[in-house]
Amino acid sequence: MRTESEGVRTAPEDAACPHDLRHHGDAEVRDDGSALVDLAVNVRADTPPVWLREHIAASLSGLAAYPDGRAARAAVAARHGLPVERVLLTAGAAEAFVLLARALKVCRPVVVHPQFTEPEAALRDAGHTVGRVLLREADGFRLDPAAVPEDADLVVIGNPTNPTSVLHPAAAVARLARPGRTLVVDEAFMDAVPGEREALAGRTDVPGLVVLRSLTKTWGLAGLRIGYVLAAPETVAELERAQPLWPVSTPALAAARACVGAGALAEAARAAHRVAADRAHLIAGLRGFAAHGLRVVEPAEGPFVLVRLPRAAAVRDRLRDLGYAVRRGDTFPGLDEEWLRLAVRDRETVDGFLGALGRALETG
Amino acid sequence: MRTESEGVRTAPEDAACPHDLRHHGDAEVRDDGSALVDLAVNVRADTPPVWLREHIAASLSGLAAYPDGRAARAAVAARHGLPVERVLLTAGAAEAFVLLARALKVCRPVVVHPQFTEPEAALRDAGHTVGRVLLREADGFRLDPAAVPEDADLVVIGNPTNPTSVLHPAAAVARLARPGRTLVVDEAFMDAVPGEREALAGRTDVPGLVVLRSLTKTWGLAGLRIGYVLAAPETVAELERAQPLWPVSTPALAAARACVGAGALAEAARAAHRVAADRAHLIAGLRGFAAHGLRVVEPAEGPFVLVRLPRAAAVRDRLRDLGYAVRRGDTFPGLDEEWLRLAVRDRETVDGFLGALGRALETG
Repeated sequence: MRTESEGVRTAPEDAACPHDLRHHGDAEVRDDGSALVDLAVNVRADTPPVWLREHIAASLSGLAAYPDGRAARAAVAARHGLPVERVLLTAGAAEAFVLLARALKVCRPVVVHPQFTEPEAALRDAGHTVGRVLLREADGFRLDPAAVPEDADLVVIGNPTNPTSVLHPAAAVARLARPGRTLVVDEAFMDAVPGEREALAGRTDVPGLVVLRSLTKTWGLAGLRIGYVLAAPETVAELERAQPLWPVSTPALAAARACVGAGALAEAARAAHRVAADRAHLIAGLRGFAAHGLRVVEPAEGPFVLVRLPRAAAVRDRLRDLGYAVRRGDTFPGLDEEWLRLAVRDRETVDGFLGALGRALETG
Repeated sequence: MRTESEGVRTAPEDAACPHDLRHHGDAEVRDDGSALVDLAVNVRADTPPVWLREHIAASLSGLAAYPDGRAARAAVAARHGLPVERVLLTAGAAEAFVLLARALKVCRPVVVHPQFTEPEAALRDAGHTVGRVLLREADGFRLDPAAVPEDADLVVIGNPTNPTSVLHPAAAVARLARPGRTLVVDEAFMDAVPGEREALAGRTDVPGLVVLRSLTKTWGLAGLRIGYVLAAPETVAELERAQPLWPVSTPALAAARACVGAGALAEAARAAHRVAADRAHLIAGLRGFAAHGLRVVEPAEGPFVLVRLPRAAAVRDRLRDLGYAVRRGDTFPGLDEEWLRLAVRDRETVDGFLGALGRALETG
């Protein structure tokens, strides 16, 4: 582990910030990419399930009324054993990042990279100078809490982290908490980890803790814009004041209620185990390309894996020609054009992909 | 016309701001009010139409993908004869108010009241001190551009104005434009005005003009969160930077495309004429209560009317007992507990309401 330039880099704007923080996996499968097999976007395949889609469709009969988020908020609170004052529903985690960047009084925000770039982009757009802690490949991209500067008053970390798929120990993440610091833990992919081990959601003993959750990935609701924040009541109130009126749509509220019910949680748990098995299959196959210089970041605990291989950009292009979309890694701070992120898919899709990857590497 | 205290009042926070800016009509029909006949919420009855609901339902099959707003943005731009760079889709007009309050560099914002309170609430929540121009009943709540202070660098006005139902001449509104000033015209109800006369949407010759449009009221999409901003490309870009990623959901984007098509515009035009006829019927009936001191603000041009009558709060309570919800007026700056706002409904509903109003007034 290191912090860039022997310390946290105070990111001096765009010239020194060559990563396209606004590039996301969906751009890899839009337009001409829509016919590709998608290993670029971290959304579970074959979602939303029919029962959930029907539940959302039923909510459309009430569209003429303004959204009333109270029942969904109570349902989310109950799911985490928290009072409603600790829950804020948002139009996806993306809205939460903007609220955190704009509503909180913050002087020295730091983002632990490589990770999802939207938190840093939102902080910059809000006028902040953002410090970066860059975790290192040599350390397996694992967190060393000591690497985060003491005076950081906002720290953002993902767990499990996108794109590294590293699951940090909850205790190590919690050790980042300080009086006067807001500790934002993006748990957008935690429901894809069996048992949600290492989750901080529901904890009230970590000062300044803000946990972000998404319903997008496991439930295939990227198009619906729904997520939530768990935090101290005063933080929730501060973020809520910066939200527009009626921030979450009626169909999204219906989905939120449905996705935190007992049946949905059991289905998500089964899906998490399936992801783990499919990921093991993918990684076993990827290891077969070690002779080509391909390395997988392990242990991977999210529904995606990060791989390093020489000339990754050319391989990615060839994979597109062969019908497969994968996520470029070079837009993530701390990574470069040698990295790719692969979403975990079912065995059949993975086998097809591995075959294509073999051809792509051999013609390289 | 006057400005409060012989000048624009620099609203000195809550103590001097007794109006509940966060009260909206939906609160009047929630919970125990859900069984009431609704004349409180300014959404067209019997909406969304079946064809639109089916169109939205069809979009649910694509929920797993992140929203792609490009087609909807192009459709909205074409509807107003503008390039896409002048269009920003938002999660309802409410999001637009927050973006305007937080993204623009503004020192001296002024809101022309009485009007929809959310713009002022959003400005205050963003830390601004908000000046108020209060239009007067004696002037028919008509705009005198000279009443707006010269140094205001953000001016917000509704046209037609909620709750007064006054339609200001487009030329009078445009005269509020100044170099260095952003002129925000909330045209959320303009599509309920036959011919959309006095609209500024689509105009590119008014410096600093920002027009807000809603699809909520005419189309019954309050639950979906969809609206849009029309402004100069540089303003659109500034607001867009403050938006979360993927700000508008896939179902809302589908609705936006559908609602700006030729067939939908023709349907909205027919609805606007029906609203005008129904409003005339409502106003004729209300005039019958002049002996009770009831006065209607005229000419009314929106899908609602503002009335003044003694002891309006007690009448409103009695109307609730009789099964009718109306909107209190006292939460609008410039009005007090003698005012009520009534949504225009079909003749049959209006006749039932007028009967109940007669009973409410007689038992008063």
